[in-house]
Amino acid sequence: MRRPQDTLVRELLKLCGRPEVISFAGGLPASEGFAVEAMRRAADEVLSQMPVRALQYSYTEGDPILRQAIADFETSRGTPTSADEVMIVTGSQQAIDLIARSFIDAGSRVLVENPTYMGALQTFRNASPEFVPLPHDEEGLNPAAIDSSFAGARFAYVMPTYANPTGMTLSEERRIALCQKARELDLWLVEDDPYGELWYDKPAPKSLRHWAPERTLRLGTLSKTLAPGLRIGYVCGPKEALNVLSLLKQTCDLHTSTFAQLTAARVFTSGALEEHLPQVRALYKRQAQAMLEALEAHMPEGIAWTRVEGGMFLWMTLPETVNTTALFKRAIDAGVAFVPGQAFYAAGDDTHHMRLSFATVPVDKIRTGVERLAGLLRAAL
Amino acid sequence: MRRPQDTLVRELLKLCGRPEVISFAGGLPASEGFAVEAMRRAADEVLSQMPVRALQYSYTEGDPILRQAIADFETSRGTPTSADEVMIVTGSQQAIDLIARSFIDAGSRVLVENPTYMGALQTFRNASPEFVPLPHDEEGLNPAAIDSSFAGARFAYVMPTYANPTGMTLSEERRIALCQKARELDLWLVEDDPYGELWYDKPAPKSLRHWAPERTLRLGTLSKTLAPGLRIGYVCGPKEALNVLSLLKQTCDLHTSTFAQLTAARVFTSGALEEHLPQVRALYKRQAQAMLEALEAHMPEGIAWTRVEGGMFLWMTLPETVNTTALFKRAIDAGVAFVPGQAFYAAGDDTHHMRLSFATVPVDKIRTGVERLAGLLRAAL
Repeated sequence: MRRPQDTLVRELLKLCGRPEVISFAGGLPASEGFAVEAMRRAADEVLSQMPVRALQYSYTEGDPILRQAIADFETSRGTPTSADEVMIVTGSQQAIDLIARSFIDAGSRVLVENPTYMGALQTFRNASPEFVPLPHDEEGLNPAAIDSSFAGARFAYVMPTYANPTGMTLSEERRIALCQKARELDLWLVEDDPYGELWYDKPAPKSLRHWAPERTLRLGTLSKTLAPGLRIGYVCGPKEALNVLSLLKQTCDLHTSTFAQLTAARVFTSGALEEHLPQVRALYKRQAQAMLEALEAHMPEGIAWTRVEGGMFLWMTLPETVNTTALFKRAIDAGVAFVPGQAFYAAGDDTHHMRLSFATVPVDKIRTGVERLAGLLRAAL
Repeated sequence: MRRPQDTLVRELLKLCGRPEVISFAGGLPASEGFAVEAMRRAADEVLSQMPVRALQYSYTEGDPILRQAIADFETSRGTPTSADEVMIVTGSQQAIDLIARSFIDAGSRVLVENPTYMGALQTFRNASPEFVPLPHDEEGLNPAAIDSSFAGARFAYVMPTYANPTGMTLSEERRIALCQKARELDLWLVEDDPYGELWYDKPAPKSLRHWAPERTLRLGTLSKTLAPGLRIGYVCGPKEALNVLSLLKQTCDLHTSTFAQLTAARVFTSGALEEHLPQVRALYKRQAQAMLEALEAHMPEGIAWTRVEGGMFLWMTLPETVNTTALFKRAIDAGVAFVPGQAFYAAGDDTHHMRLSFATVPVDKIRTGVERLAGLLRAAL
């Protein structure tokens, strides 16, 4: 049997469970943000009104009711989408796996932000690609620096909105420029957007798919807006591409839980989701602000962090002399945890960053945790 | 993008949807057999009593409550099983995919019954194995004929109980002999058992895993006992092997819907499943008997079929001069459908069989459908 690579970070993160540790290392959404009552009502209605549809085998592409609900949702966010441009998957993680298996041959080039989502890198690695980092500057991914040497790559995997791990958002101008480059170089774009709905003050820019629908596979999920336990994600893209992913999905799990799909669909179509989202946004905004204020108040000189405008994460940059992986165990002893930045790099050996999540930490603990972290960093500098 | 192979059979089966056609081509379980009310109650209790556990991210191996419930269930069926020997998957189809990706390299040998479950063959083919047919005789798989030339294969994929497509069940004596052979040749056994609970008069023999727990990955599912729309399957096997599958599963979909898992677990632990199973068995028994009686009454000489004792399918063997794939379109015109046997063969070109399912067809339609089929076959012979 082939054993997938286990990571150092996975080992480290096991230490975060100690009760005295305030953990900013989590990647979970806040469970206070789950629309429990709406789902309870929806599940009951589904099993009362359409039990056979909810419980029998179904289409690999997803139940038409949910595909239509998501098409309408995407359309309401500014990108006209039809139900046959939507495919349902078992969490957007499954879309990453299907795309990896459909697009990548051993040694083929895949363009990634550097750093990027660890779970995507791990999944892509199953197919043994060569990762090529996309050019960045202080505003994030820099399309102007993408030249013809990037042509021939299988796709560019991009998280343009409130990214994991950096918290950064690509400007509309750069989105348009990236799509233009993709067209010139005939590149597919894989737009992973788990956090886009979690804006604090104003909605995120329009999706990449809006600007290049013919070459974008846009991954969405209900894990951060409704609940991850449903395992409902989706892919929007050209029908022909979805057909290919769907034939592969059939061999992976036949289809995604119809019961979960129809329960989710009802939360969309009843209006409960749109009613619920403002509370979720307010929750994350409150906690993000608490962290930003505490960082401002306590962090020593020479440390920078992203001024996040949405999502669950921020990214801290330390002087190059500090190795955050080495620092991790001392942080645990000091009662605070983060994810060492190293985990998120596909290439290179960048070790002076850390990812902080405020998503599941109450405001008072955020303050205490940041104070502990600041004390540790003052000692380290 | 790589396009998985689409099959002739898939194309043919699209014709079965015509309203005037009585279809024995289905593979679906009977929706009258779904425990709707028990699931409705269970879902409501789960979302009332443990909403965060049901809706938050969870363990890749599965929720401990369901793993324990399934361990108890397997133990009650005669094979002592602990929770850490159970892993939850998104339908047992996912287990097939995880096993294919973990065990098979291009060109490596995989032992299969011939014919066998089409969905497993398709999934294995993603990994480009060489299929080697296991020896059979009129009693099914024949362990006595497995010699040292089979050593070195990655595993043997076997469906020993009410098999799809043949409906046959391996005797206890042959199960023991197969496990002994596997031990001698150091082979893994993949025991796929979706139908074992669907016995008509007496329970099926003990599982292969009972006789060779150290080298068997046993696949189970709730799709035929509770409902497929939950997408809950499981693998029982040695912990170390499950750990490997689990690391791969993490990259595929992180975990299976916790909401669906906990709902299913409650149907087990409340006793509702054991209370419900006798009705499901009676339903299939009634329909199987109707088909067996109609075949006996109407089929011309020279045609044989399996005397099924459980499950959803029977297998019909025609004279070698009849090609069932060629016959299919004429059957549709005559108002009856079956699955041409060709679809189930990993190797060889065996075209004089067909699979008949009685699972979703009411008794009176079973009689009419068999009469139509008999008329067609009399004309063809």
